Amino acid sequence: MIPEKEITIYDIAKSLNISAATVSRGLKDHPGISKLTKKRIFDAAKDMGYRFNSLASNLRRQRTNTIGVIVPRLNSSFMSDAIAGMEQVANQAGYNLIISQSLETVKKEVENSLTMFNNRVDGLLVSLAYNTQDISHFEAFIKKGIPVIFFDRIFEHIKCPNIIIDNYQAGYEITKHLIAEGGRRIMHVSGNQSRNVYSERFRGYRDALEEFNLPFSDELLIVNNLTALEGIETAVQILSMEKKPEAVFVSNDTCAVACMLELKKQGIKIPEDISFAGFNNDPIAKVVEPNLTTINYHGEEMGELAANILIRHLTNNLEIGPAHTTVLGHELIVRQSSTKKII
Amino acid sequence: MIPEKEITIYDIAKSLNISAATVSRGLKDHPGISKLTKKRIFDAAKDMGYRFNSLASNLRRQRTNTIGVIVPRLNSSFMSDAIAGMEQVANQAGYNLIISQSLETVKKEVENSLTMFNNRVDGLLVSLAYNTQDISHFEAFIKKGIPVIFFDRIFEHIKCPNIIIDNYQAGYEITKHLIAEGGRRIMHVSGNQSRNVYSERFRGYRDALEEFNLPFSDELLIVNNLTALEGIETAVQILSMEKKPEAVFVSNDTCAVACMLELKKQGIKIPEDISFAGFNNDPIAKVVEPNLTTINYHGEEMGELAANILIRHLTNNLEIGPAHTTVLGHELIVRQSSTKKII
Repeated sequence: MIPEKEITIYDIAKSLNISAATVSRGLKDHPGISKLTKKRIFDAAKDMGYRFNSLASNLRRQRTNTIGVIVPRLNSSFMSDAIAGMEQVANQAGYNLIISQSLETVKKEVENSLTMFNNRVDGLLVSLAYNTQDISHFEAFIKKGIPVIFFDRIFEHIKCPNIIIDNYQAGYEITKHLIAEGGRRIMHVSGNQSRNVYSERFRGYRDALEEFNLPFSDELLIVNNLTALEGIETAVQILSMEKKPEAVFVSNDTCAVACMLELKKQGIKIPEDISFAGFNNDPIAKVVEPNLTTINYHGEEMGELAANILIRHLTNNLEIGPAHTTVLGHELIVRQSSTKKII
Repeated sequence: MIPEKEITIYDIAKSLNISAATVSRGLKDHPGISKLTKKRIFDAAKDMGYRFNSLASNLRRQRTNTIGVIVPRLNSSFMSDAIAGMEQVANQAGYNLIISQSLETVKKEVENSLTMFNNRVDGLLVSLAYNTQDISHFEAFIKKGIPVIFFDRIFEHIKCPNIIIDNYQAGYEITKHLIAEGGRRIMHVSGNQSRNVYSERFRGYRDALEEFNLPFSDELLIVNNLTALEGIETAVQILSMEKKPEAVFVSNDTCAVACMLELKKQGIKIPEDISFAGFNNDPIAKVVEPNLTTINYHGEEMGELAANILIRHLTNNLEIGPAHTTVLGHELIVRQSSTKKII
């Protein structure tokens, strides 16, 4: 197909029998052009399929009105909520969202950041991959004054605002709850300790044990990738333990639910034999039987807030640094998987 | 903060003590420049934070290397899988994905399409909102020869390729399965009949009933928005029916699971009293007890394929039309929610 030729302001001017300068000013909502003429110009532009020349105008302004997003995976319940929140805020403010996923590898994260850089995004929202150890790949943005904002899985950097929940406190609260329900030997299943979300939850768990003089041993800590498959493997490991845990706190719901289901299949009663707690409040937490005690995490709100902070910086040309940390609220949601007492 | 000034080819030329023309040709991988010089140029470009001037080069080529995506919601299990698939393919091929959500309203879908048009996306991947009745808002793209590809929730148009599963066949198979398991009075819960996915599944259900001479009455069809809340309302409605259905086929898993859980709470045994089937194979389908019989839908594959078809058109400048329909496979996954026979 031969594409139609691009409609220009000259075509609009000709069709309305007015000058191109008037069309140009009308399209920019210039106060010198009457409302009626503006309406005629916009109607003609729409009918004729005129495209605002955003490329040329971006080139002049050195702004692209795009926000780059780099996340580990697009298809997790938490992340799709966060991106839905970002999109709402960005769309309202006239920004486009360019998204990419690192697939949990620093290699792809580096590639994605280079693509975003060359595409001249106005700012970047990042949640780090599993194995990212430093953030030198974001230095090019930081040096240019392009805001880089970390959310959820963050890296502390004086020039990068970040948005988190209090993972330490959440880990502490959920462990304390398991203790209050009678747990003494409490296992923890965690992820890569380079990521704040996992190391902080672990630290909260450790401190709760210590506060109540409960034992911690290496046997009680499992570090894996928190997948469903590894949940099943964890169940197998638990079944093989001579002295089984009375409670298990898993750092996400996916792994917790898979582990519970496998233990149930092998005759373990939950919560009577082993009580369970997860993290995230994914839809499966409300469906598994018994329903899973977990930490509610406001993914959509976190996404909205990250986009808001970024756009505020862009709109006001704010200097970043020393960067703020925003801590979002969380809630412990107690369900039947952890309530041993008869209610 | 005062942003660093933009690095140009002149800065690179100066630092390497070579001509700007050599830098320019080196960056374009010109055969006349030696490998060693190219390496020096690229290393300097990287160290100095040079950004390839994609805006200017896009303006010359009239291409932006971006693909626009408009979907009803970003945070559904199916859609986040589909977008993850698109991102993988687009990223590999050097395209960026700009995403937006219509939030199920045609109003926002129209706005999003205008934004995409003004941003000069090279092509569009669309899954329609709940209440979209025509696709005049995509005509501007079609007239310009910019490919518009529909996936999942499609609109038939001679210039728009589309990718679907055989929703009719899937609806037929799952209903036939419920009949084979002993269901005679079979209820169907569906969504807006303007959307192919829902009307086709309903048609499959009707034809299966007819084939086995089973009754259909208006009482056996509920049309709602297929949310969890409406699943609970459906349960309340079922409980109030004098002659309850023996089986229920719901057009998504979210609504099916919520309905099942509510009925269970009211003492209904599943599958003994009422058997259930859903659609999508969301993670919750494998977690609910009894596990939910459903249709497996390859979201990630559908996303990959949609992006592939679009990129093939862009790469080869293929003319679109008469447009192809690509039908992806699906599978009936039988689980305990629908197997009344003792196995």
